[in-house]
Amino acid sequence: MQRADETLTAWLPELLYTEGRFERGLALVCDEAGRITHLTRDYQTLAARVIRLSDRALLPGLVNAHSHSFQRVIRGRTEHRVAARDSFWTWREQMYAAALRLTPEDLYDAARMAFLEMALTGITAVGEFHYLHHAPDGTPYDDPNLLAKEVVRAARDVGLRIALLRVAYARAGFEMQPNQQQARFIEHDAQRFSKQTDELRRALMCDTTNENTTGNAKASSDERADVLLKHVWVGVAPHSIRAVPLDYLREVCAYARAAALPVHMHIAEQPAEVAACQREHGRTPIALLANEDLLDARFTAVHAVHVKPDETCALAQACAHVCACPTTERNLGDGIVPVDLFFAAGVPVALGTDSHAQIDLLEDARELEYHLRLQKLERAVLAPQPNATSGEPHTDQLSALAARLFACATINGARSIGAPSGALAVGRAADFFTVDLNDPSIAGANETDLLPAIVFALARTGVREVAVGGRLVVQDGQHQAQTQIVERFARLQRTLWQ
Amino acid sequence: MQRADETLTAWLPELLYTEGRFERGLALVCDEAGRITHLTRDYQTLAARVIRLSDRALLPGLVNAHSHSFQRVIRGRTEHRVAARDSFWTWREQMYAAALRLTPEDLYDAARMAFLEMALTGITAVGEFHYLHHAPDGTPYDDPNLLAKEVVRAARDVGLRIALLRVAYARAGFEMQPNQQQARFIEHDAQRFSKQTDELRRALMCDTTNENTTGNAKASSDERADVLLKHVWVGVAPHSIRAVPLDYLREVCAYARAAALPVHMHIAEQPAEVAACQREHGRTPIALLANEDLLDARFTAVHAVHVKPDETCALAQACAHVCACPTTERNLGDGIVPVDLFFAAGVPVALGTDSHAQIDLLEDARELEYHLRLQKLERAVLAPQPNATSGEPHTDQLSALAARLFACATINGARSIGAPSGALAVGRAADFFTVDLNDPSIAGANETDLLPAIVFALARTGVREVAVGGRLVVQDGQHQAQTQIVERFARLQRTLWQ
Repeated sequence: MQRADETLTAWLPELLYTEGRFERGLALVCDEAGRITHLTRDYQTLAARVIRLSDRALLPGLVNAHSHSFQRVIRGRTEHRVAARDSFWTWREQMYAAALRLTPEDLYDAARMAFLEMALTGITAVGEFHYLHHAPDGTPYDDPNLLAKEVVRAARDVGLRIALLRVAYARAGFEMQPNQQQARFIEHDAQRFSKQTDELRRALMCDTTNENTTGNAKASSDERADVLLKHVWVGVAPHSIRAVPLDYLREVCAYARAAALPVHMHIAEQPAEVAACQREHGRTPIALLANEDLLDARFTAVHAVHVKPDETCALAQACAHVCACPTTERNLGDGIVPVDLFFAAGVPVALGTDSHAQIDLLEDARELEYHLRLQKLERAVLAPQPNATSGEPHTDQLSALAARLFACATINGARSIGAPSGALAVGRAADFFTVDLNDPSIAGANETDLLPAIVFALARTGVREVAVGGRLVVQDGQHQAQTQIVERFARLQRTLWQ
Repeated sequence: MQRADETLTAWLPELLYTEGRFERGLALVCDEAGRITHLTRDYQTLAARVIRLSDRALLPGLVNAHSHSFQRVIRGRTEHRVAARDSFWTWREQMYAAALRLTPEDLYDAARMAFLEMALTGITAVGEFHYLHHAPDGTPYDDPNLLAKEVVRAARDVGLRIALLRVAYARAGFEMQPNQQQARFIEHDAQRFSKQTDELRRALMCDTTNENTTGNAKASSDERADVLLKHVWVGVAPHSIRAVPLDYLREVCAYARAAALPVHMHIAEQPAEVAACQREHGRTPIALLANEDLLDARFTAVHAVHVKPDETCALAQACAHVCACPTTERNLGDGIVPVDLFFAAGVPVALGTDSHAQIDLLEDARELEYHLRLQKLERAVLAPQPNATSGEPHTDQLSALAARLFACATINGARSIGAPSGALAVGRAADFFTVDLNDPSIAGANETDLLPAIVFALARTGVREVAVGGRLVVQDGQHQAQTQIVERFARLQRTLWQ
């Protein structure tokens, strides 16, 4: 029971999405620490401030598990021909050229712009795969974590939760010469990487603790009590098999395992990477990681496009995640993630907006399914079989596929990056977004077809309120600092490109 | 020169898209008939009412060349498994079940909802491929064109231009039994089809003439004077090779050619259709049409997914159009339109939102390119070669691909359906939409990268004003009748599905 001196807030939308279905008349009640304390129709018996959200459905905040926020500066600037045959690799040269131009303040401005747009689309937590460490010539800043802290500052100022996934990057690739364009990314050895990661964790955890002790956030005896309502935390990200020698990789993963940190790694985004791994290690990336016992429940294989059916078992057995980024993968010509194989094997799939060619995690969710439809000339590829006993509770037939895809955009992402959000359940963070039931993109939907309408058709105009830890960061489709963030970003783009 | 008694309006955005590039400080001036009279920086020398649109870019209205507006009622209701292997054909059963439920008034409500959403996304003209003719049991209504007129009324009430593409549909298919679910579509013979189409043309042209004689719409000596500012017109649409026997098809096409009407036809959407055509006629659909001399500049092949390279030549030689519908084609598992082949052969490609799984013609435009990237693992597939002399004037390298895709969403569609809009040029209709340059999805773009930002990333929040014939149908992102249209549609959905 709540203590009388504790202030509760009850959010009362028309429909609320919990445990795989929409419920009518259910209130989400949270405490001052931003934790969900009740999901109840009897909210009037609580001494709660009631906020009515008429004509709204309320859903768990989206979790963006893979972001390179600075790449927002090249949106629209790489969609042209630069070579006889363009590919991921020619795009990468353009991306590097942008990465070399950014000052620490620029990075803040670019990241804040990306995070603002995320918030406006219902994203409440982001995994930032951060590889810009040094000055453009490779010299460390006085504070070697200056750039990481700028990105964290941007997320904090917008109001998103952030997992700063600190990247280990040692080399251009197997039997490749150093590439001067990668100088900002390099940390030559695992020892230095661990030291700097320790420093970052200390610096950020201090902030986080201060932030999270407001209100009464004492752990209850509830089984979800171990969900800390952290706003900022650190994970590690050995960039790729290509960029990290095996010894270094082993040490980074051991460091992460000892500290129970999430580990994210680009895996099999391009066929050339897989081929290089075969040449260097005699195995595919996933087979190598499995053989080295580096896969576990805290591991996320980002992209995992060029993966063979038998490789999915290794991921499944380790309880590892995959993070697909379809809007980027279609933009970069990476290929189609075999999500059908991952679902069949029981591998949870998270989603990321990655390069921010677009920021629309529901578009990413529907593309998981749509790209397979184009490949197989079938429909409902990722839907449960009609006669199979579904492991997902409370999803009826009409919304079963949408519920799977929505889980990719929410709870699977939260588990991948270690966020306390991703589902509306007692004990978890009160991170949510609302949609206007009268928005023309979803108008006319009822409880049973609303989720498919949202997953397959929601336009951004429909996203109205976004809250992180029970505090609104977006109201009526606008962010409080939107004008200033956009102005600063427009100034940055003028500086960079004119 | 303008006469003193003629009222002109000058729209002055920050940037205006004309002849393949954005111009700063250019005003679009139109007369009361809704025709563009000037594109000028010297708008102050005209006795024009000036409307300033600060922080806006102004672009030609999008043209949606293929719509089945009633299918809006099944959005979100077919994204689940209904068979062991779902496909276009299992979806079609669900679509038919919905088509059988609709009264004439329902059809109006559904169409108005679809057209409202189109307007809110910047679409100003639509080609409605209309095949619901009769009562559910196949009995003609007292007015055999009642349903067509309901759809036209919906477009008129929303404010869109509409080409009512009246469908000829005779049978379930080659050597197939009649299908009772198609009873509403059937017109058994070409004679009846022509008679009813004549009646519809007379009924609608009458309305149109009244509408278009407001203001001074007299033809000038300008070479574009033959662009009539029609709001409603009729085309014909032999549904598909499957649904129309060859003699009937010949007669419909002869009728259309005599009256200079656009002809639209579903072509090669599914492999099974192509195979059936081969069985019946010994040729592929396009080869058959070419052999029968039924292809010309007024012909549009809708979908054209399963087309071989050598078939593109027949389309190119006839100056025929293709209309791709990628958001529907990915939804239905139709496959990827080989737009690279069409571009290489010089076949103009238009775009349609078709089933309205989503209504977002810029998403359709980007998918033309993106689906090919996924197929080929390349980038910039549809971009002009860097050294080739581009046939498109004023497009610099950065926006050349986006300009091609944007042409698909505008001028190519206008030519396909015979709309007077599609480009901002003197003599054409003043149909346009504006985007907010501060919208987070495109913020920071300048003249050179704004078009790629819009084509590859614009969110619906960015669309602010939409005008048809110089009259605003959308202001500040809202349509005047939006609340009523949404309420009516929500009521319809409750009736249909609860």
